[in-house]
Amino acid sequence: MIDILPPGHGFYQSEFEARISRAQRIMRERELDALLLTSPHNIRYVTGFETQFWESPTRPWFIVVPAEGKPVAVIPEIGAPQMAATWIDDVHAWPAPQPADDGTSLLASVLAQLPRRFGRMGAELGREMALRMPVMQFLDLREALPGLEIGDGSPCIWEARRVKSAAEIERIRFVCQLASEAYENLTNLISTGENLRDVCRKLTIDLLQRGADAVPFLPAIAGSDGVKQIVCGPQDKDLEAGDIMFIDTGTTYDGYFCDFDRNWAVGDVSDAANRANAAVWDATEAGIAAARPGVTVEDVWRAQSVVLEAAGSLGNNVGRMGHGLGMALTEPPSNMPGDNTMLEPGVVLTIEPGMEFADGRMIVHEENIVITEDGCELLTKRAPREMWRID
Amino acid sequence: MIDILPPGHGFYQSEFEARISRAQRIMRERELDALLLTSPHNIRYVTGFETQFWESPTRPWFIVVPAEGKPVAVIPEIGAPQMAATWIDDVHAWPAPQPADDGTSLLASVLAQLPRRFGRMGAELGREMALRMPVMQFLDLREALPGLEIGDGSPCIWEARRVKSAAEIERIRFVCQLASEAYENLTNLISTGENLRDVCRKLTIDLLQRGADAVPFLPAIAGSDGVKQIVCGPQDKDLEAGDIMFIDTGTTYDGYFCDFDRNWAVGDVSDAANRANAAVWDATEAGIAAARPGVTVEDVWRAQSVVLEAAGSLGNNVGRMGHGLGMALTEPPSNMPGDNTMLEPGVVLTIEPGMEFADGRMIVHEENIVITEDGCELLTKRAPREMWRID
Repeated sequence: MIDILPPGHGFYQSEFEARISRAQRIMRERELDALLLTSPHNIRYVTGFETQFWESPTRPWFIVVPAEGKPVAVIPEIGAPQMAATWIDDVHAWPAPQPADDGTSLLASVLAQLPRRFGRMGAELGREMALRMPVMQFLDLREALPGLEIGDGSPCIWEARRVKSAAEIERIRFVCQLASEAYENLTNLISTGENLRDVCRKLTIDLLQRGADAVPFLPAIAGSDGVKQIVCGPQDKDLEAGDIMFIDTGTTYDGYFCDFDRNWAVGDVSDAANRANAAVWDATEAGIAAARPGVTVEDVWRAQSVVLEAAGSLGNNVGRMGHGLGMALTEPPSNMPGDNTMLEPGVVLTIEPGMEFADGRMIVHEENIVITEDGCELLTKRAPREMWRID
Repeated sequence: MIDILPPGHGFYQSEFEARISRAQRIMRERELDALLLTSPHNIRYVTGFETQFWESPTRPWFIVVPAEGKPVAVIPEIGAPQMAATWIDDVHAWPAPQPADDGTSLLASVLAQLPRRFGRMGAELGREMALRMPVMQFLDLREALPGLEIGDGSPCIWEARRVKSAAEIERIRFVCQLASEAYENLTNLISTGENLRDVCRKLTIDLLQRGADAVPFLPAIAGSDGVKQIVCGPQDKDLEAGDIMFIDTGTTYDGYFCDFDRNWAVGDVSDAANRANAAVWDATEAGIAAARPGVTVEDVWRAQSVVLEAAGSLGNNVGRMGHGLGMALTEPPSNMPGDNTMLEPGVVLTIEPGMEFADGRMIVHEENIVITEDGCELLTKRAPREMWRID
């Protein structure tokens, strides 16, 4: 039913070599001798190592990206056999968990042996990142490495991840298409009276049957003539005539997310809601039209914002009108005033205008695009200008 | 098909009052004026606030547990409407994302107004916890609060979460039963030649249809006569005669996990594998028999370990033989030498012996229990002593 074939899982080694080569160039520009990675997406980005075991907070994991050569793994023994099956050659493992020294001394010995040119290493200390290890252990590590400054590596990491490769875009396109078709099919599965938890269960199963790997983000919210918020749900709520149902999804394929939403009218909704919905659709259209190399994400925000203001928007609580997308559901940049990130080919963005058109009644749309040489490609199947209807 | 009814979603306010009252008692004992919480499970534990939006790393969220009274929320505007629908009254929100000051000054002003008795606050800085905010922002916050020490609150938080209430146990029991029946049913859905990705897809759909909320952890691994590791998978691998298929699951209901595994023989496996499997089953039995109030988790480890050593175990790469379980897939304590945590009624544990019986051939079993007044209750449906068979 989908007109593109699923890409295979996993990447060629050349993909990882290109990633590391780019990261190492940025490290030199930023005068970093190494990067220390602890969090799932960053580790997978440079090694290809895939696991759902991140759900267990017990053991820290470390990947070191040196100034030259392949990344080095310093990880719990439980993960060593599979890490050895990636393109990484140098795998140091300890018998975790060992609360008294859960890898700290092993990691410090690996870091101490790295060549030092700048005397500085970057860790995931800054914007839109969190260290996946106890802060106290991180402070111990810093003390164990006198003469080596550990600074903020987040700008370097985000810069390395910002432009997506053809293989990455292929995965995002696939999951966007798959989720677009599942959204389209949903009116065949549900009707008025359905509980939102059951709506999500049916949609999740449909997404999995269409080839998704996982559905970690699927908030569904419904309210009379609009929604108050767009990130928490489903609750125990039955669809009633006059509701607008909003569903967003971060569905994944081979480690890459889509992130886009749809809206459904349950029976008849007010003219005001239909007008607001059309205005938000037009704002999305304006955002897509504005997105091309050489403009900033603030420009993309403005293109959407003027349409919403002309339609009488009271604002919204989302705080921006789209963002980067890739291995994470949301990545920098943010389409908002003050973010002057310049678009370039290979950047994947969400276009996400939203407006409150009456107190507590919000409508938010979202599509996913990738910037091309002369504009952008829509990765999702465009929503219709009128809401789908559930009877 | 399941003989217990699903509990409703959500908890009575009295549950949260009891949690906060216990946490505040422990805070006094540990001389903490407040707890600062940033991570999903801790925030949900004290507020009931549920979202899948944690997938977005963009915005930090903060909950402050003061020495007396209800928790206080300091959160992005996008979450404010739903936080206001919990039992929390005091919700401060800012228009995130604002990279230059993403809640730091608002949080500092809330913290500065708290009564100070000890001059110390606890944050998620220690064992089996990670701060969900940029470390640089955390260091800025510390500087903005002169005279207030921010120390390790993790031991206090884990102590508060360790003993589960009847309502929490009811949820874990439900999801354990549901997953037990899905495991039992799996041989009806698959056969030799099936790809492990399809096995996981079918099992996930079955778990959802039986009433699970989500299946965030479902590694499936298969290898000739045993597995090398138990945390990464599924890969693109077809089941072949002679394989042992291992599946573990952390399936959730209303925010609570099960965490247990099963093993299947694909056609005929070796006598050595069958003997090892029986020994690991016996070790599980010994662990369950040993678990009761007044013994330590090291005792529970030893009871399992002696059975495995007698059976010729070469060790394993898991590092322990079970652990705590609740809102996280793994929680302290660890069933291993050196962990002297004393068991008491209401503690939920996994019993998880594993042995390598030949090079690269490991068998691991797992069941979930809750400690009772005079022993323990098995929450899962006990695995059969012989592996299930797939033809």
